[in-house]
Amino acid sequence: MPAPPEIQGRPAAALDTFVERVRSGNVRALARAITAIENNSSEASRLMKALFPYSGHASVIGMTGSPGAGKSTLVDHLAREYRKQEKTIGIIAVDPTSPYTGGAILGDRIRMQAHHADTGIYIRSMATRGFLGGLAPATADVATLLDAAGKDIVLIETVGVGQDEIDIVRLADVTVVILVPGMGDDVQTIKAGIMEIADIFVINKSDREGADRVEREIRAMQTLAIRRDDWMPPIVKTVASEGTGVPELAKAIASYREYFESKDLALRKKVSNWRERLVEMLRTALLDRMMREHLDPEHLTEYAREIAERRRDPYSLVEELVRSFGEKHV
Amino acid sequence: MPAPPEIQGRPAAALDTFVERVRSGNVRALARAITAIENNSSEASRLMKALFPYSGHASVIGMTGSPGAGKSTLVDHLAREYRKQEKTIGIIAVDPTSPYTGGAILGDRIRMQAHHADTGIYIRSMATRGFLGGLAPATADVATLLDAAGKDIVLIETVGVGQDEIDIVRLADVTVVILVPGMGDDVQTIKAGIMEIADIFVINKSDREGADRVEREIRAMQTLAIRRDDWMPPIVKTVASEGTGVPELAKAIASYREYFESKDLALRKKVSNWRERLVEMLRTALLDRMMREHLDPEHLTEYAREIAERRRDPYSLVEELVRSFGEKHV
Repeated sequence: MPAPPEIQGRPAAALDTFVERVRSGNVRALARAITAIENNSSEASRLMKALFPYSGHASVIGMTGSPGAGKSTLVDHLAREYRKQEKTIGIIAVDPTSPYTGGAILGDRIRMQAHHADTGIYIRSMATRGFLGGLAPATADVATLLDAAGKDIVLIETVGVGQDEIDIVRLADVTVVILVPGMGDDVQTIKAGIMEIADIFVINKSDREGADRVEREIRAMQTLAIRRDDWMPPIVKTVASEGTGVPELAKAIASYREYFESKDLALRKKVSNWRERLVEMLRTALLDRMMREHLDPEHLTEYAREIAERRRDPYSLVEELVRSFGEKHV
Repeated sequence: MPAPPEIQGRPAAALDTFVERVRSGNVRALARAITAIENNSSEASRLMKALFPYSGHASVIGMTGSPGAGKSTLVDHLAREYRKQEKTIGIIAVDPTSPYTGGAILGDRIRMQAHHADTGIYIRSMATRGFLGGLAPATADVATLLDAAGKDIVLIETVGVGQDEIDIVRLADVTVVILVPGMGDDVQTIKAGIMEIADIFVINKSDREGADRVEREIRAMQTLAIRRDDWMPPIVKTVASEGTGVPELAKAIASYREYFESKDLALRKKVSNWRERLVEMLRTALLDRMMREHLDPEHLTEYAREIAERRRDPYSLVEELVRSFGEKHV
């Protein structure tokens, strides 16, 4: 009797079952799928192909801010606000913890307890290192996965300082930038890099001294910025630890979405986002093929040694390797 | 009469002159070369090939820390310390300023004034965005350039929070991580991500309350960390604004280098660094060729539109594009 049909090693029937379990929002299936994405495995690729047609319905909200801005607390309160509206939520917390020492898992558990027994909220941390294809593509895939799993809202939180982290929230439908009073001058510098990506500003811990100054600074920078979509990012003041201002934040997000859809800008933004995601995916996939077919680890080390000893220049080597790519097949 | 021989458009003789001017440390030639690297131009590629054989002599020191840790001040004082030892210095300041609003140039001018008329110090800021091949590869190329230009020491300073910035200092010969007392809990989290890359710790602003606590925290984390090279990263206390502790920092860096060379670890680290740099260079070069030969901007936009409208799945598309790469030539 012939073996059952397989898709590159995994029985097709098993993949179908996996896809169905993810789509139904099964927590264990989601966890396994996200791990597969983090590991850039071939299973993840098959899964994403199968799930992709079911995505495109969730609202993806990126939230970013300096360390200490109170992002997690704000995200948790916003999630609760959406639960009141009967919406289901996926939260992706991009965690700046070391890949070596781990630590994200504990945070998940503590935060999950706050939403104990609410199956409408799924939380997953992702460390900022340790998977092959880069952080932004993996996070985008997880957002697509949670979307296909039927979540109405996908919240992505990151520390808004590194370029990786900024790339992540830029690919959201709505980007919220969280500032706090009294973080000193260097933080103002960092803010400059994320001012352009904010669709909505939040001044969290707004009961602190200096909240008005932060507001004035945002307003001053806004007079310089030119947005192609003519949207004027509103400023919402919150005290996340008390839930103050969270309904107003949800309203501001809804207003932005309405504005965006009324102006037919939503599709344009999605196309622009997909252009960037495609380029990133290609970058990773091309390198994967190169490493698989043309450049095994031993060769790579040997080349690196020749370069370190100045017996070879890396610029010419890379040109040669790229030129020969696709021509010979090993 | 035949035209003079050209290397892809630029007369070879002109390139030779350019290379010679860079090697002699000519400030205008360096500035032009670095701009070419930032723009990922073909001139940069030819230049780097010609300069590479002259590199490999400089000591590359990466310095990273939280915003507000006093990195620039410390780097400036360390540069002065090396000048006392008659060494020439190149400083690369990776600036988290927005690509849109600029701002790095002013900082260079202010800092250059402090070293006024000292041709032994060259300072250049690089913004964290806006060039094609990524920040880390461009910074690494600029370090190689300053090395080939005869600088004895290349100091690279970055904000140690984003992955990009961490990647930059990881590729240095020596990595210095700068901490300060009293930055709060979130900063402790970020620190976790950079603890592993530190060859030397600096506690700057060490006259502040809490310096001892930071030292205890570092020691506590060190008991958990295992380094393959058996080096125990020392902790140097500085007050950069007064120059206190800077000679001790220079000594710690020298000790690390001595240890490293005595243990034959230097070449091994360089080979490992070059492996990573090669992979990054390949990633960029492969995508460049793909975009040039197989995927013009209009096609890319059309694909993005089909994906945004769920008429095509991006995962299969990327597989197809990568499979056909190198087979057809446009």
